[in-house]
Amino acid sequence: MFLTRSEYDRGVNTFSPEGRLFQVEYAIEAIKLGSTAIGIRTNEGVILAVEKRVTSPLLVADSIEKILEIDRHVACAMSGLTADSRTMIEHARVEAQNHTFAYEEPIPVESVTQAVCDLALRFGEGADGQESTMSRPFGVALLIAGVDERGPQLYNTDPSGTFWRYEAKAIGAGSEGAQTELQEQYHRDITLADAEVLALKVLKQVMEEKLSNTNVQLAKVTQETGYSIYAKDELQSVISRM
Amino acid sequence: MFLTRSEYDRGVNTFSPEGRLFQVEYAIEAIKLGSTAIGIRTNEGVILAVEKRVTSPLLVADSIEKILEIDRHVACAMSGLTADSRTMIEHARVEAQNHTFAYEEPIPVESVTQAVCDLALRFGEGADGQESTMSRPFGVALLIAGVDERGPQLYNTDPSGTFWRYEAKAIGAGSEGAQTELQEQYHRDITLADAEVLALKVLKQVMEEKLSNTNVQLAKVTQETGYSIYAKDELQSVISRM
Amino acid sequence: MFLTRSEYDRGVNTFSPEGRLFQVEYAIEAIKLGSTAIGIRTNEGVILAVEKRVTSPLLVADSIEKILEIDRHVACAMSGLTADSRTMIEHARVEAQNHTFAYEEPIPVESVTQAVCDLALRFGEGADGQESTMSRPFGVALLIAGVDERGPQLYNTDPSGTFWRYEAKAIGAGSEGAQTELQEQYHRDITLADAEVLALKVLKQVMEEKLSNTNVQLAKVTQETGYSIYAKDELQSVISRM
Amino acid sequence: MFLTRSEYDRGVNTFSPEGRLFQVEYAIEAIKLGSTAIGIRTNEGVILAVEKRVTSPLLVADSIEKILEIDRHVACAMSGLTADSRTMIEHARVEAQNHTFAYEEPIPVESVTQAVCDLALRFGEGADGQESTMSRPFGVALLIAGVDERGPQLYNTDPSGTFWRYEAKAIGAGSEGAQTELQEQYHRDITLADAEVLALKVLKQVMEEKLSNTNVQLAKVTQETGYSIYAKDELQSVISRM
Amino acid sequence: MFLTRSEYDRGVNTFSPEGRLFQVEYAIEAIKLGSTAIGIRTNEGVILAVEKRVTSPLLVADSIEKILEIDRHVACAMSGLTADSRTMIEHARVEAQNHTFAYEEPIPVESVTQAVCDLALRFGEGADGQESTMSRPFGVALLIAGVDERGPQLYNTDPSGTFWRYEAKAIGAGSEGAQTELQEQYHRDITLADAEVLALKVLKQVMEEKLSNTNVQLAKVTQETGYSIYAKDELQSVISRM
Amino acid sequence: MFLTRSEYDRGVNTFSPEGRLFQVEYAIEAIKLGSTAIGIRTNEGVILAVEKRVTSPLLVADSIEKILEIDRHVACAMSGLTADSRTMIEHARVEAQNHTFAYEEPIPVESVTQAVCDLALRFGEGADGQESTMSRPFGVALLIAGVDERGPQLYNTDPSGTFWRYEAKAIGAGSEGAQTELQEQYHRDITLADAEVLALKVLKQVMEEKLSNTNVQLAKVTQETGYSIYAKDELQSVISRM
Amino acid sequence: MFLTRSEYDRGVNTFSPEGRLFQVEYAIEAIKLGSTAIGIRTNEGVILAVEKRVTSPLLVADSIEKILEIDRHVACAMSGLTADSRTMIEHARVEAQNHTFAYEEPIPVESVTQAVCDLALRFGEGADGQESTMSRPFGVALLIAGVDERGPQLYNTDPSGTFWRYEAKAIGAGSEGAQTELQEQYHRDITLADAEVLALKVLKQVMEEKLSNTNVQLAKVTQETGYSIYAKDELQSVISRM
Repeated sequence: MFLTRSEYDRGVNTFSPEGRLFQVEYAIEAIKLGSTAIGIRTNEGVILAVEKRVTSPLLVADSIEKILEIDRHVACAMSGLTADSRTMIEHARVEAQNHTFAYEEPIPVESVTQAVCDLALRFGEGADGQESTMSRPFGVALLIAGVDERGPQLYNTDPSGTFWRYEAKAIGAGSEGAQTELQEQYHRDITLADAEVLALKVLKQVMEEKLSNTNVQLAKVTQETGYSIYAKDELQSVISRM
Repeated sequence: MFLTRSEYDRGVNTFSPEGRLFQVEYAIEAIKLGSTAIGIRTNEGVILAVEKRVTSPLLVADSIEKILEIDRHVACAMSGLTADSRTMIEHARVEAQNHTFAYEEPIPVESVTQAVCDLALRFGEGADGQESTMSRPFGVALLIAGVDERGPQLYNTDPSGTFWRYEAKAIGAGSEGAQTELQEQYHRDITLADAEVLALKVLKQVMEEKLSNTNVQLAKVTQETGYSIYAKDELQSVISRM
Repeated sequence: MFLTRSEYDRGVNTFSPEGRLFQVEYAIEAIKLGSTAIGIRTNEGVILAVEKRVTSPLLVADSIEKILEIDRHVACAMSGLTADSRTMIEHARVEAQNHTFAYEEPIPVESVTQAVCDLALRFGEGADGQESTMSRPFGVALLIAGVDERGPQLYNTDPSGTFWRYEAKAIGAGSEGAQTELQEQYHRDITLADAEVLALKVLKQVMEEKLSNTNVQLAKVTQETGYSIYAKDELQSVISRM
Repeated sequence: MFLTRSEYDRGVNTFSPEGRLFQVEYAIEAIKLGSTAIGIRTNEGVILAVEKRVTSPLLVADSIEKILEIDRHVACAMSGLTADSRTMIEHARVEAQNHTFAYEEPIPVESVTQAVCDLALRFGEGADGQESTMSRPFGVALLIAGVDERGPQLYNTDPSGTFWRYEAKAIGAGSEGAQTELQEQYHRDITLADAEVLALKVLKQVMEEKLSNTNVQLAKVTQETGYSIYAKDELQSVISRM
Repeated sequence: MFLTRSEYDRGVNTFSPEGRLFQVEYAIEAIKLGSTAIGIRTNEGVILAVEKRVTSPLLVADSIEKILEIDRHVACAMSGLTADSRTMIEHARVEAQNHTFAYEEPIPVESVTQAVCDLALRFGEGADGQESTMSRPFGVALLIAGVDERGPQLYNTDPSGTFWRYEAKAIGAGSEGAQTELQEQYHRDITLADAEVLALKVLKQVMEEKLSNTNVQLAKVTQETGYSIYAKDELQSVISRM
Repeated sequence: MFLTRSEYDRGVNTFSPEGRLFQVEYAIEAIKLGSTAIGIRTNEGVILAVEKRVTSPLLVADSIEKILEIDRHVACAMSGLTADSRTMIEHARVEAQNHTFAYEEPIPVESVTQAVCDLALRFGEGADGQESTMSRPFGVALLIAGVDERGPQLYNTDPSGTFWRYEAKAIGAGSEGAQTELQEQYHRDITLADAEVLALKVLKQVMEEKLSNTNVQLAKVTQETGYSIYAKDELQSVISRM
Repeated sequence: MFLTRSEYDRGVNTFSPEGRLFQVEYAIEAIKLGSTAIGIRTNEGVILAVEKRVTSPLLVADSIEKILEIDRHVACAMSGLTADSRTMIEHARVEAQNHTFAYEEPIPVESVTQAVCDLALRFGEGADGQESTMSRPFGVALLIAGVDERGPQLYNTDPSGTFWRYEAKAIGAGSEGAQTELQEQYHRDITLADAEVLALKVLKQVMEEKLSNTNVQLAKVTQETGYSIYAKDELQSVISRM
C-alpha cells in the first residue's frame, strides 16, 4: 500500500521490506526527466550523440555541453542533473590523470568507469572531508565511450553505482523508444559513418523539436584521433546524409 | 496527492518519487519573490540593470546594491536573498583573485561562474570547516557579466548549481514578462547604447513604481573600461533616451 | 493551509514551498515583542533613543542598557532578545578592534555592520569551534549608528543577515507607528538638537508608560565627540524642550 | 491552538511563530517549582535568604546549601535544579579566579554575572569539548550578591541568559507574593539589620512550614567582611528580632 | 493530557511545559524496580544493608554484590540498573585514587559524592571521548557511606545528579515503607550495634522472601577499621540478635 | 496501552515511563530465538553443551561453532546473533591476552566476564573510533565457563551488560524448560561425568530434532586440561551413557 | 499488526519487540531479487555457477561478471546489489594480500570469509574514515569457494554478517527450488565433472531463459590449478554433457 511504502522511500539509504532502495530508484527517475543521449560502438570507434534542450531563443546553444572529454581517449555523454554530472566527470578526469602519472599509460576505459561508480556508491557516508561525497544519490546517468587496448568500448553507469557494457545504448527522457530503435537497426559490423547517421536518426524520433545542427551534439572516440566533437559543418554534413 | 508530496519536500537533499529535489525548487521560488534583474550581451560589452525596492522613503536608496563587482572585468546582478548572495559573491571574488595570483591573468568568465555553482551544489554537506557550505540551498540567482578573450559573455546561475549562457536574460519577480519582452526586442547586433535603453524599458514594464534614477541601477562591463556602474546623471541621460 | 505550513516552519533552515524561511521570519517576530528603539541621522551626527521597560519598581533602571558602544565612533541600539544581542555586539567590538589593529584606522561603519550580518547568517552551521555560531537565528535587530569618512550613517540589521541604510528608522514593538511618525516629521536638514527632540517625541507616542528621564535612553554619535550617552540631566533638558 | 503550539516547544532552540523560545520558557517554569530565595541590597551590603525544604526528618538540614560563595566578595542564592546550579557556580568561581590572576583585582560583580549568562546562552551548541555546554537550557535562576568599587549590588539571572540589577528580588515558588511584599516594604535607606529581618519576614509568608533556624539560610556580603553565612545562633537572633 | 505529555518525555534532555525533565524522572522509576538498600549513620560509623534477589536456586548468591568498596574509608550500596552502577562506582574509585595521589590524604566523602553526581549530570553530552558519558540518565541511586575528618556520613544520590546527606535512608522497591520505619525507629544516639539490627529489621519488613544470611548483605564503615563487609557468621549473629 | 508504549521502545537508549529500556529487552528477545545452550559447574570443572541447528542436510554441521575458546582456561557458549557474538568473543580474547601480557598470569574468569559486559553497556555511544561499539545492544547471551584460583566458575551475561554467577544455567529458545530441569537434577556434588550426561539429557528434552553426535556440541573446562571440545567419538560415548 | 511493525523496520539498527533486525531482513530480500548462483563442493575442488541476466540484446554479455577472483586459490559468486559486492570483494582481496604479505602463505578460506562478514557487520557505525563502512546493511550474499590445507571448501555469507559452510548451496531468486534440487542430487563422492553438469542442470531449472554458453558463467577452484573461469568452448562442452 502507498502510505506504508512512503515510510521507506524517504530514508536515503534504507531498504524497503521488498529489499528495494527507493532513493536510488527515484534518482533514476530524475534521469528520465533529462535530455536523451545515445552511444553506439563500432569497430572503428564509438559515437556519442545528445539532444540539447534550447529552452529559450536567447539561450546560447553552444554553451550547453552534454558531451564532455574525460581524457584524450575517453569521453562521456550525460543525462540528468547537470550540476551533479560536473562532480562525477571532474572525479573521472582526476582518476585518469592519476593513472597516467602512476603507470605511464592511459587509464583503461573500464577502470575510469569503475572509478565513477565507486564515487556514486559512496553517497550518504557523511562528512569525511573527501572530494565529492553527497548526502543523496547522484541524479545522473553517463554513457562512457573510450578506446584502449581492448578496442572501442561503451559503458553505461546509473545512480546505484552499477555499470554495464553495451554495443549501443540510449539514456534519458526518450530512452525507451530510442533503445527499441537501436535494437532493430544496430548490427555488429556497422561502420562509424553509418553509426553517425543512426545516432541522429534515433535522436530525431524522440525529440520534440526539429533536429538541426544547433540542438544536437555529436562526438566520436577513435583509436587514431581519440575524442573529438563535431563542428557545426561536420554535423550538418551528417544530417544531410540522413 | 499533496500530503504525500509533503513528505519529500522537507528533506533538504532527498529525491521525490518523480526524481525531483523539492528544496532546490523551493529555493528557486525564493528568487521569484526577489526584485527583477536584467542582463543583455552586446558585441561591445554586457549591460546589467536591476530594480531597487525602496520600501520606505527614509531608506537610503543608494545603499541598496544589487549589482556588485567580482573583478575588474566581471560583475553580477542578483535576485533573491541578499544575505545569501554576499556569501556567493565573496566566494567568487576570492576565486578570481586566486586565479590572477596563480596564472597571472584575469579569471575567465565561465570559470568564475563555475566556481559559484560548485559552491551552490555543496549545500547540506555538513560541518567540514569550509568557507561557506550551507545547510540549505542558496536562495539566490545571479546574472554574471564579464569580458575575456572570448569576448563579452552573460551567464545565469540558479540554486541547483546549474548555469547557462544567455544573450539576454531576466531573473526575479518580473522575469517571466521581462524575458518575453527581451525575446521580442533583442537582436544580435544591438549596440551597447540601445541595450542600455532596452534594459530600462523592460524593467519599467515589470516595476510597480515609476522608474527613476533612484530606484534602478545600471552597469556595464566592456573590454576597454571593464566594470562600471552608472552615476545618477549617466543613468538620467539613459532614462531620457527611452 | 495551516497544518501543511507547519511542516516547514520547524526546520531551522528549510525553504517552504513558497521559498520562505519561516524560522527567520519567526525570529523577526521576536523583535516585535521587544522594546522600541529609534535612530535618526542628521548632518551633525546620529541620534539613538530607546524605551526601557522597568517592569518592577525595584529593578535598577540604570542597569538596563539597550544602547551600547561598539567603538569610539560606532554604537548601536537593540531590540529583541537581550542575551542574543550581547553575542552580536561582542562580535562587532572584536571586529572593530581587529580592523584598527590591522589597518591603523577606525573600522568603516558599513564594514562593522556587514560583520554583524555575516555572523547572523551563519546560524545552523553546526559545531565548528567558532566564536559564536548559533543553532537558531539571532532574535535581535540592531540600529547601528556611526561616523566615518562618509559622514554620519545609520544602519538597520535583521535576523536574516540583511542590512539597510536609513535616514531614520524605528524597530521593536512600537516600530510601525513610530516609523510613520518619523516619515512625517523627518527632513534631511534636521539639526541634531531637533533630532533629539523628535526621537523622544516618537518614543513617547508608542510607550505605554509616561516618558521620563528614567525609562528612556538617549545617545549620539558625532564626528567631534564620537559616541556618548546622555546623562540624566542632559536627558531631562531634552525632555523639557519637547 | 494547543496541538499546533506543541510542534514548536519540543525543539530546544526553535522559534515559535510568535517569536518565542518555548524550551527557555519551560526552564523558567522549572524555577517556579524550586524553593524561594530572596535578595535585598542596602548601602551597607547585600542580604541573601533562602528557604530549605527539609523533606524528611532524617535529611541533614545543614547539608542543603542554597547559598554559595563565588569569591570572597561575591555569593549567590539559587532556585531550580540543584545539579544545574553546581555547573554554573563552578563556572563563576573559575571566571572569578581567572580575573584575579590576570588583573590582580577582584572580579567586578557585573562581570561575573555576565560570565554566568554567557554560559547559560550557550546551551544546544553541541559537542565542542568545552567545560560545560548543555543540550538544554539550565533550569536555574540565581541571585548574585556582591560588593565592588561600585558598592553593594544585586543581580538576577534567568535561563535565557539575561540578567537585571535589582534593589530587592525574590525567585522560586513563592516569588510572586514575596516580590509584592518586598515592593511594599523596601526603601532605599534600609539598614542591613532591617534587611535581615525583612528577608526572613517575606520568606515566612511564603513558606508552608513554620520558619526556624534549621529551615532557612541567611547570608550577607559587605565591604568590610565580604561574604559570610549566618551561624545558627546569629540566625536565631535575627528571628527573635522579627 | 496524556498524549500531549508523551511528546516531551521521549526527549532525553527536554523540558516539559511544567518545567520537568521526564527522562530523569523515568530513570528514577527504574530505581523503584530495584532491590531495597538501607543506610544508617551512627556516631561510631555507618551501616549499609541490602536485599539480594536470588531469582534462581542455581544462582550463586555470593556473586550478587550490591555493596561495593570505593576506597578504604568509603563504600556504597546501589539500587537500580547493575551495569550502570559499575560505571559510576568505577568513576568514584578513580576519583578517590586521584585525590589520594594529588593531596596525600583520603578523599572527603562529600567530594567523592559530588564527583559521582557530576558524572550523572553529564549524560546526553555526545561523543567527546570521555571516560563514561551516557546517552541517557544513569538508572541508579547510591547510598554512599564514609568516614573522614567530619566523622561518619551518609549521602544519597539520584539520577538527576543531586545529592543529599541523611541520618538514615532507604532506596529501591521497598523504600517508601522502609523510610517510614526508619523515621520511627532512628534516633541520633543509636549505637552501631543497634543500627545493624535496625537495618535488617527494616529490610525484613519490605522483603518478600524470608530474610536469611544468604539473601541480604550487611557492611559497615568506621573510623577504626574503614569499610568491611560482614561474613556469613557475623551476619547470622546479627540476625539472631533481631 | 500499546500505542503509547511504542513511542518509547524505538529509542535505543531511552527510558519508558516505568523506567524500562525497551531496546535492551528486545535484544533479550533475540536470544529467545536462538539455539539452546547449557552450562553446569562441578567441583572438577565446568561443562558447556549447545544445540546445533542444522537447517539443511548440505550444511556442514562441523562448521557451526557455538562454543568457543577465549583463553586456555576460559571458554563460552553463545545464544542469539552469531555475528554479534564474534565481536564480543574477539574482545574477550584480546582482554585475556592483554592481562596475561601485563600481569604474567591468566585472566581471572570474573575479569574477562566483566570486560565483556563493559563492552555490552557501551552501545549507542557514537563514533569514537573504538574497536567495537555498536549503535544497538548486542543481541547475544553468553555462558562463560572457566577455571582459576577460585576454582571452576560459570557466568551468564545478557544484553544489558549485567552478569550473574550460576551453578547451572540454560539460555536460548529452550531455556525455560531446561532451567527447570536443571534445578530438579543438579546437586552441588555432581561429578563431571554426571554433568556431561545431565547437560545432554536436558538439551534432548528441549530439542525438536533427535539428539545425535552431529547436532550438539559438548565441551569442558578443567583445572588440569583447560578448555577442550569433545570429539565425535567422545560425544557418542557420553550419548551412550544417557 | 502491520502498522506497529512498520515503526521498527525503518531504523537501520533497531530491534523489534520480537528481537528482529528488520533492515537486515530486508537486505536479505534484496538478494531474493538477484540472479541465481550455485556452489558445489567436491573432493577435487569447488564448482561455482551463475545465471547472467542479459536484459538487452545490445548488452555485452561478457561484461557481466558475477563470479570474481579473490586470490589465486579463492573466488566467489555473488547475488544481490552488484555495486555493494564490489566493495566487499575489494575488501576480501586486500585482506588476502595482507595475509600473504604478513605470513608468507595464502589466506585460509575461512579467514577471508570471516573478514568479509566482519565488514558486513560494521554498517551503521558512522563516519570514521574507514575503507568501506556503509550506513545500511550490504544487500549482497556471497558463495565463497576456495582450497587450502583443509581441502576444498564452500562458504555462504549473508547481510547479517553470518556465514555457514555448505557442501552445496544456491542463493538468489531461484535459490529455493535450486537448493531442493541440490539436496536430492548431491552426494559426497560426486566428481568435479559431475558437479559441473549438476550445477548447470540446477540453474537451467530456475532460469526463465534457455540456458546457453552466453547467459551462464561457470568456474572452478582446485588444488592444482587454483581459480579458473570456463572459456566459452569449455562451457559449451559441459552443456553438451548435460
